[in-house]
Amino acid sequence: MPPLPPETTGAALAASPVDPVALTAALVRCPSVTPAEGGALVLLESLLMAAGFECHRADRGGIANLFARWGRRGANRSFGFNGHTDVVPVGDASAWTCDPFGAEIRDGWLYGRGATDMKSGVAAFVAAAVDFVRDTPPDGAVILTLTGDEEDVAEDGTRALLDWMAENSEAMTHCLVGEPTCPARMGEMMKIGRRGSLTARFVATGVQGHSAYPHRAKNPLSALVRLMDRLDRHELDRGTDHFDPTTLAITTIDAGNPATNVIPATARATVNIRFSDAHSGASIRQWLQDEAATVAAETGVGIAVSVKISGESFLTPPGDFSALIARAVEAETGVTPEASTSGGTSDARFVKDHCPVVEFGLVGQTMHQVDERVEVAQIGQLKAIYGRILRDYFA
Amino acid sequence: MPPLPPETTGAALAASPVDPVALTAALVRCPSVTPAEGGALVLLESLLMAAGFECHRADRGGIANLFARWGRRGANRSFGFNGHTDVVPVGDASAWTCDPFGAEIRDGWLYGRGATDMKSGVAAFVAAAVDFVRDTPPDGAVILTLTGDEEDVAEDGTRALLDWMAENSEAMTHCLVGEPTCPARMGEMMKIGRRGSLTARFVATGVQGHSAYPHRAKNPLSALVRLMDRLDRHELDRGTDHFDPTTLAITTIDAGNPATNVIPATARATVNIRFSDAHSGASIRQWLQDEAATVAAETGVGIAVSVKISGESFLTPPGDFSALIARAVEAETGVTPEASTSGGTSDARFVKDHCPVVEFGLVGQTMHQVDERVEVAQIGQLKAIYGRILRDYFA
Ligand SMILES: [Zn+2]
Ligand SMILES: [Zn+2]
Repeated sequence: MPPLPPETTGAALAASPVDPVALTAALVRCPSVTPAEGGALVLLESLLMAAGFECHRADRGGIANLFARWGRRGANRSFGFNGHTDVVPVGDASAWTCDPFGAEIRDGWLYGRGATDMKSGVAAFVAAAVDFVRDTPPDGAVILTLTGDEEDVAEDGTRALLDWMAENSEAMTHCLVGEPTCPARMGEMMKIGRRGSLTARFVATGVQGHSAYPHRAKNPLSALVRLMDRLDRHELDRGTDHFDPTTLAITTIDAGNPATNVIPATARATVNIRFSDAHSGASIRQWLQDEAATVAAETGVGIAVSVKISGESFLTPPGDFSALIARAVEAETGVTPEASTSGGTSDARFVKDHCPVVEFGLVGQTMHQVDERVEVAQIGQLKAIYGRILRDYFA
Repeated sequence: MPPLPPETTGAALAASPVDPVALTAALVRCPSVTPAEGGALVLLESLLMAAGFECHRADRGGIANLFARWGRRGANRSFGFNGHTDVVPVGDASAWTCDPFGAEIRDGWLYGRGATDMKSGVAAFVAAAVDFVRDTPPDGAVILTLTGDEEDVAEDGTRALLDWMAENSEAMTHCLVGEPTCPARMGEMMKIGRRGSLTARFVATGVQGHSAYPHRAKNPLSALVRLMDRLDRHELDRGTDHFDPTTLAITTIDAGNPATNVIPATARATVNIRFSDAHSGASIRQWLQDEAATVAAETGVGIAVSVKISGESFLTPPGDFSALIARAVEAETGVTPEASTSGGTSDARFVKDHCPVVEFGLVGQTMHQVDERVEVAQIGQLKAIYGRILRDYFA
């Protein structure tokens, strides 16, 4: 890899005040497609070290992770930030109107894979933190947990960071995750929890036979459509105080049988469930197993269920921490953020076992899409919000 | 192709009395996998010409078909026989314990693809017919309609033969189809009709979306499982005087979506229906379209239905002809054949538009399977039954 131009070295980018747009651009130019580090964490480490942060790599299973702390270990109050530098693949490169790793700025937008999700969020927080500790050194610590694996299985990303912290007596008192959280308008939403998520796979095994004699066969598809229809029609709940209703989606059914005169022996189905705090992964698994057993008994078809729980539902109940964040957002944008638990999973599901966690970031409309882009003005706004949060937190 | 050994030329095989086992073996050795002629009809033509039959090839669309008549055209009574010499593919050749085209005889069984379905049936009838016209020339005609395409789409097989006959003023008064009809025991079943058969394909088109927000998508799988379950549970009838109940089998459902966080835009399903004479292809099609429209209205998912009717139900009502056949079977085997309409389609569905048709043949247990085989003794029994039928018919 050729040396970076001087204006994109960590030391140069650390110059006061830190320019979050230049830092976002420098990060977008790192091709850090999961699980590649791509130079992004190396760049941030050199910047943070130049700004007086103590840095440690907490790599695991081939994944790069960076822990950085300003202030002493074991401080009374330590404000944490969590984010990721890895990005999803480019997809159809020919559909992009620009280089996905070019960080081109056009008409007030910065383009590139990761521009929204979430290199701008990382840059805004790093910029705010470096300026904050330099200008008004707090009585406490500022900790950054930055991972190179959020977009993939996330086994060795934020989890590895939190494991490393436990082993090394490092702790965050509260944590902010910088994922994009606003559906359309800057400031309109923060996240104080998430529904749980699980995926269940069903394998129905019957007895193959000729279509003309269904009574001599046991059709796994008869069992599967009955089971899927039952699951699909069932209302698991109507939502709770802080949660949208639990949802279930059948994502695929496959038998792959081209012969119209044959009843197949096996068929498969998958459902994905996002569940409120009215349920747990275990209670949903039990419900699925009971339903499968009922249909298996009715039809004589064997139905194997395997459930993978991606995350339990969790909530940081509205309180001082979320109120502090909401006030900072409102002060900088004039918009009061809704405290939501909607959306897909994020690493907040791991952080929540460590300390109270809230997520706030900019508008995520183009994340994971072709021509992903971020409004340049929002990056500055986000830095200002994060800076205000740090000042208020340590005030 | 090397010349056939002398004992398997048509002229040699025509020697009196015709040996139906040798003829079966000679036919099995012809690799006549649909649509290949494989030498089978050429061999039969030379045998039948040597025995005084007038032969015509009624080939169409690359398919070989053989028409053969003993006696004069337009005779008052002409007994017809219908059969096919094509066979289904070998399948997993390594799973066979013998050469699928070797016609090996082992422990009283003759092995090979087509041994049961239906080269032994053709051989038994040809042997019976040649001996019959030579020994006791009847006042009438004996007609053989032999096709090389029954196992595939059958567009240019027996249909082409019947078209050719109509154009050439050839007619059968009654016809016997020699397909294997006995489930397990020689003589136990003849077929006097068939249920109809149709295949319906459904394409459900919804709106793709994220699994976490099913209400923003329209899941084609929700619609398909609801529709399939409705169809699967519906009792179309409980059978009629001569027909088993109508059956419906879901043969495949496919979405092919590997992403558990995505609701797919499209999903497909296929059902196969075998219907009694309480329905027609058109009435079933209408029912399917009505059900699809109901579910489409309930779910907002578009459901396209395409129906292919393979054959309407038909019946040769029990009467003199079926009674004659039953008596012959009983005389030779001691078993009274049940007059059934069960089973898959056969070319009887075409012949029934030409003249009354009944099917009788030997035990079909291994048809289409690995190590397809026929009990050698059954071939001789079948020849005896067919010979008795010819004698009784013209008596
Ligand atoms: Zn992200
Ligand atoms: Zn057949």
